[in-house]
Amino acid sequence: MIEINRELKISLYQQIYENIKRDIFTGRLCTGEKLTSKRRLAEQLGVSLITVENAYAQLIAEGYVRAAEKSGYFVQYNGEIIPLSRLSGNTCFDEAARNENDSHLKGGSRLGEKAAEKDESAAPTITESAECFPFTVWARLMRSVLLEKGTALLQPIPNGGAAELRSAVSDYLYRVRGFYVPSERIIIGSGTEYLYNLLIQLLGREHSYGTENPGYRKPIEIYRLNDVRSELIAMDDCGMDVKALEESGVSVAHISPAHHFPTGTVMPISRRREIITWAKSGRKERFIIEDDYDSEFRWSGRPLPAMFGMDDGGRVIYVNTFSQTIAPSVRISYMCLPEGLYERWQERMGFYSCSVPAFEQYTLARFISEGYFERHINRSKKRYRRIRELVLELMESFGDSVTVNEENAGLHFTIKTDNTEVREKCALCGITIRSIREYYGNDTTPADSEQVYVVNYSNASEKRLMSILN
Amino acid sequence: MIEINRELKISLYQQIYENIKRDIFTGRLCTGEKLTSKRRLAEQLGVSLITVENAYAQLIAEGYVRAAEKSGYFVQYNGEIIPLSRLSGNTCFDEAARNENDSHLKGGSRLGEKAAEKDESAAPTITESAECFPFTVWARLMRSVLLEKGTALLQPIPNGGAAELRSAVSDYLYRVRGFYVPSERIIIGSGTEYLYNLLIQLLGREHSYGTENPGYRKPIEIYRLNDVRSELIAMDDCGMDVKALEESGVSVAHISPAHHFPTGTVMPISRRREIITWAKSGRKERFIIEDDYDSEFRWSGRPLPAMFGMDDGGRVIYVNTFSQTIAPSVRISYMCLPEGLYERWQERMGFYSCSVPAFEQYTLARFISEGYFERHINRSKKRYRRIRELVLELMESFGDSVTVNEENAGLHFTIKTDNTEVREKCALCGITIRSIREYYGNDTTPADSEQVYVVNYSNASEKRLMSILN
Repeated sequence: MIEINRELKISLYQQIYENIKRDIFTGRLCTGEKLTSKRRLAEQLGVSLITVENAYAQLIAEGYVRAAEKSGYFVQYNGEIIPLSRLSGNTCFDEAARNENDSHLKGGSRLGEKAAEKDESAAPTITESAECFPFTVWARLMRSVLLEKGTALLQPIPNGGAAELRSAVSDYLYRVRGFYVPSERIIIGSGTEYLYNLLIQLLGREHSYGTENPGYRKPIEIYRLNDVRSELIAMDDCGMDVKALEESGVSVAHISPAHHFPTGTVMPISRRREIITWAKSGRKERFIIEDDYDSEFRWSGRPLPAMFGMDDGGRVIYVNTFSQTIAPSVRISYMCLPEGLYERWQERMGFYSCSVPAFEQYTLARFISEGYFERHINRSKKRYRRIRELVLELMESFGDSVTVNEENAGLHFTIKTDNTEVREKCALCGITIRSIREYYGNDTTPADSEQVYVVNYSNASEKRLMSILN
Repeated sequence: MIEINRELKISLYQQIYENIKRDIFTGRLCTGEKLTSKRRLAEQLGVSLITVENAYAQLIAEGYVRAAEKSGYFVQYNGEIIPLSRLSGNTCFDEAARNENDSHLKGGSRLGEKAAEKDESAAPTITESAECFPFTVWARLMRSVLLEKGTALLQPIPNGGAAELRSAVSDYLYRVRGFYVPSERIIIGSGTEYLYNLLIQLLGREHSYGTENPGYRKPIEIYRLNDVRSELIAMDDCGMDVKALEESGVSVAHISPAHHFPTGTVMPISRRREIITWAKSGRKERFIIEDDYDSEFRWSGRPLPAMFGMDDGGRVIYVNTFSQTIAPSVRISYMCLPEGLYERWQERMGFYSCSVPAFEQYTLARFISEGYFERHINRSKKRYRRIRELVLELMESFGDSVTVNEENAGLHFTIKTDNTEVREKCALCGITIRSIREYYGNDTTPADSEQVYVVNYSNASEKRLMSILN
């Protein structure tokens, strides 16, 4: 069943991984079925053993395959069977074709407001990054939506959002984040702030909400304004501390495993598993709100799988936004509901109209399904990869006076320093520096955080960095 | 100071009224200043005494002038002084010019979803009314916004909304609803549902919210989902019963004085005053949420002034929407905050991003400021005036078996009937009929409501009505 193509830029291990995952999703491989042994598959395909091992390891990490000692590898999947046509073909081949095709798009991309949104201190002006968004493509799609849809644009849309957009997001999540969610269970809303407000109503005010400490302030503010119980939960090096989570008595964990703000922690698979186990236990019903913040930016290896795809207990709600990856003035976010919650949504929240105008939804649907969104992200990645290297070089230029703590992900990292010159030089390049202490709740700031700063380079100027380094 | 123009289609009394109001707003006439006597003004202008009397009566009704027995009429205005340039010239002259100019716009208008929104039973399909929205104009404005704004569309906008739109709404409200609110105090949001949620957070969860019984269900659902205390307050023939309001102990009155759904009651000025007095008294702070639903449709005389403009105590929050007057798929609503609340908004809610995409806001701003919105409303009015007459004719055709209760306003009214044929014939014409009992809270349905029905003609087909009547 497995076809690999050596001419693609995509690694062989990833091609094998995606082929097997596709076969599991489409039901060609069923739960309990034994996979070809690693050695034999390596021989069949003419690849090295380590390549197959990497592919199997990824499938195990994502929970689609389990290893039984001495007897081999077995499929483990209780999700829905998805028709092949829904999976947009073989995703890695699609991606390769797309990468080769995108040379007609000029410039990089803009995700300038991403961290500016997370870090309210960042300048609100759009810098170089603004010029990189494929605005001409976006404008062309807007015009064609206007022309083709005509008065149909005035028609009411379903409460959860326009079918085209939900379907495009479902496909995108499958291709890029490696999980499948039926488009009906994707709810479109105008911003994550809006969705968090709805989630409080959906889950219920009797819940108590745990947020990361240190952490992003907006969810904390929203819980406070809604006057629901919320607790700050301590972080350790792997993310939210499970013991602290358990002891806090909260029943909803609001976390950002892909890349935590401000510490930069990427939550390892083992911790993700532990938190899912926490959510599945307990006498009261428990949930995880997974803010997939910054998952687009990982500087080495594949991004870790989203917790939504790892969860088989209907406990994880996945939240992400396009406002930050496209433009802050385009307010479109979405959440994926697990099966049980979707029914509750329909029953309790079905009367709410979708808060995003139909026109924007149709435009974004095309932007995604015609491949522009992923190209834009890929260009952004390339640009930020260069900027990141320059920023790290700048940090190195301060010698021993700066210690960098970086996890190969996202558009920010932390440093420890007592060198006052750092802030000055960073400001010249559009890099913001803030004390990590601003992100701790009252009276919880650790003593050793005194000289720790969050370095945010989402608005950095590549030109200025280059001139300062030369 | 007063100039009248007999060639305009606008009545002389309205011209006098608007001239004086303009002079009050701009500070030409100050509080305490005595107006020219009615008789003398009539002579000066060469109009009948009754014309001047009507103008003065309107100014008194709106609270800008008070009559002191035997000594004359005195200006009474403690609001802000507004520069003449902000008032868009003499509004009645503007309006006249606009009315004469709009013959190039084809078709009528569509407000089909207006009552469909209010009455969830109405068919979600857009009927004839959909074809009447000036979509070509809307599409042209979209294209020109896209062309002229370019990448500026990607820039973040202020949390309260785009300056252009807030300024256009401020001008519109002054022209059409007769009150002035500085554009900074207008908050743009994606739908009234969204705004009601924000208002709970702004006013505070310690408040208890009173809604009209019978009444529109959505606010009640929103208060319930937010788990704030709320009470159903009985209505009498003039609107929310003030005694019941006082006795209920609530501190926020959520009302729709312009045209109540489902009873059709238009709240008289005296009752509006009483409720404002209620809000200004009490030991705890009290507020009024004024849903200006259906204020666009008044079939005789001028619309009554909005409570927001009558209030001098910072107690009234004005809420209205364009989603219903333009299209349900365009989710743009707004609220006007009184002075004290605006500061609280900035402090508590300032971190929320505006939930409406910038593009839609710029398009709507032009649609309003270039006069298309009012033309659209005027065409809608003409069309619904014809439909209303046909619907009333249909009711008459049932003879004594149907008693109509109608207040010359809005797109619905109530009837009392035991004739089962009514529902059938109405359904044929796209008119929805529902028992008024569905809009009462549990155990509060009055016994005499058994045969009372709400007749909603927002989606009625003019053609079908004509063919059924002929």
